Amino acid sequence: MPDLTTAAILLAAGSSARMGGEDKLWADLGSEPLVAHPLRTLAAIEAVDVLVLVAPAQRHSMLRSLAGEAPVDLQVVEGGARRQDSVAAGIAAAPQADRYLVHDGARPLVSVALVERLLAAIAEHGAVVPAVRIADTLKHVDADGRILGTIDRDVTRAVQTPQGFDGDLLRRAHAADDGQLAADATDDAALVERLGEAVWTVEGDAANFKVTTPEDLERARAIVAAAAGEGP
Amino acid sequence: MPDLTTAAILLAAGSSARMGGEDKLWADLGSEPLVAHPLRTLAAIEAVDVLVLVAPAQRHSMLRSLAGEAPVDLQVVEGGARRQDSVAAGIAAAPQADRYLVHDGARPLVSVALVERLLAAIAEHGAVVPAVRIADTLKHVDADGRILGTIDRDVTRAVQTPQGFDGDLLRRAHAADDGQLAADATDDAALVERLGEAVWTVEGDAANFKVTTPEDLERARAIVAAAAGEGP
Repeated sequence: MPDLTTAAILLAAGSSARMGGEDKLWADLGSEPLVAHPLRTLAAIEAVDVLVLVAPAQRHSMLRSLAGEAPVDLQVVEGGARRQDSVAAGIAAAPQADRYLVHDGARPLVSVALVERLLAAIAEHGAVVPAVRIADTLKHVDADGRILGTIDRDVTRAVQTPQGFDGDLLRRAHAADDGQLAADATDDAALVERLGEAVWTVEGDAANFKVTTPEDLERARAIVAAAAGEGP
Repeated sequence: MPDLTTAAILLAAGSSARMGGEDKLWADLGSEPLVAHPLRTLAAIEAVDVLVLVAPAQRHSMLRSLAGEAPVDLQVVEGGARRQDSVAAGIAAAPQADRYLVHDGARPLVSVALVERLLAAIAEHGAVVPAVRIADTLKHVDADGRILGTIDRDVTRAVQTPQGFDGDLLRRAHAADDGQLAADATDDAALVERLGEAVWTVEGDAANFKVTTPEDLERARAIVAAAAGEGP
């Protein structure tokens, strides 16, 4: 197999309405901003050649200093209005990559092992996402909060990031997004699905949760503190 | 409004395959078994007249001693093969109740405020469940792990327990379960839905998560420790 060029795109451009105004990406986690954790994990993976950070302009110098001497080609770019516009900006900063990993900065506890599972699976499948089973019963609801039915949990998964893609496939999926979609795509897999191309799951990781609420942030802090030997 | 009789059914009968053999219900949480936490919360709610504990026979004396001097009519019964069989055993122990709350013992951090929201809503709606939005993107998958499509997250909720029901409605839902269903119902709402009766959501609580994995147990411990002023 030839040596493949891999670009990791880290999204640090999100809004954060549910955190009540505090921006979760820049909240303290351990001794650093939250987003520094996935940044370091991705930068440390040997297969990652280019690390693209997508963030508001006023965060660019902070991100460059957090990245420090990481042995990757570092690109820092501004995002767009929708999530997929931010990913497209990241792709444009590494337009020749053979493989992409796209990761949400709000998942601080991504592991090296998970990224390696994804990279191994891209070779076989072209488009792969980490997925976990859901402990709660899931329901469809209407706008008034009335339940319309129970969702079959056995065929349902919660998917995470990083999501991994063959380079041509992800570029094609984003090129096919004509900007006229009513709603944001909540992940890149959805754009690949719209092409009619197969997306496969790999085993995700419970610790790789998304920090959305203040309670999630406390949970991440407890895990980081425990890992540092300071916690319960 | 006449004074309504309320029975709370606490399920402590589950298996626990995903905890790797350790039974999560009896794991230490704070200074007590995990299941003691929801037991005390439900027993302390003034509106609860009857507390039915559904558990294996060898746990009955321990549960009676955990309940201690709780000012409720305490019933301790054995469960059945499926989740709904255990709930039916609980109903049989308080067959005249005007209202039921059914709670999974594996959700230790249920709050009094949530139970009170449910009790208020039963009066209006007859069948009510706590529900929360889901941070992750949800996908339908096939048996091989291939993604079949993205689920619309805006009309999807993860539902929790306690679930609250008008007494006649829950008894009717269980009476209609002829025992020939291929799969377990994962909640009581699903049995009411099968009757064609409306089930409504009320705002759930992120802390009211289900302890399914060892990581969930650590998360519950961190929250209990923090609440006791010992934690991070």
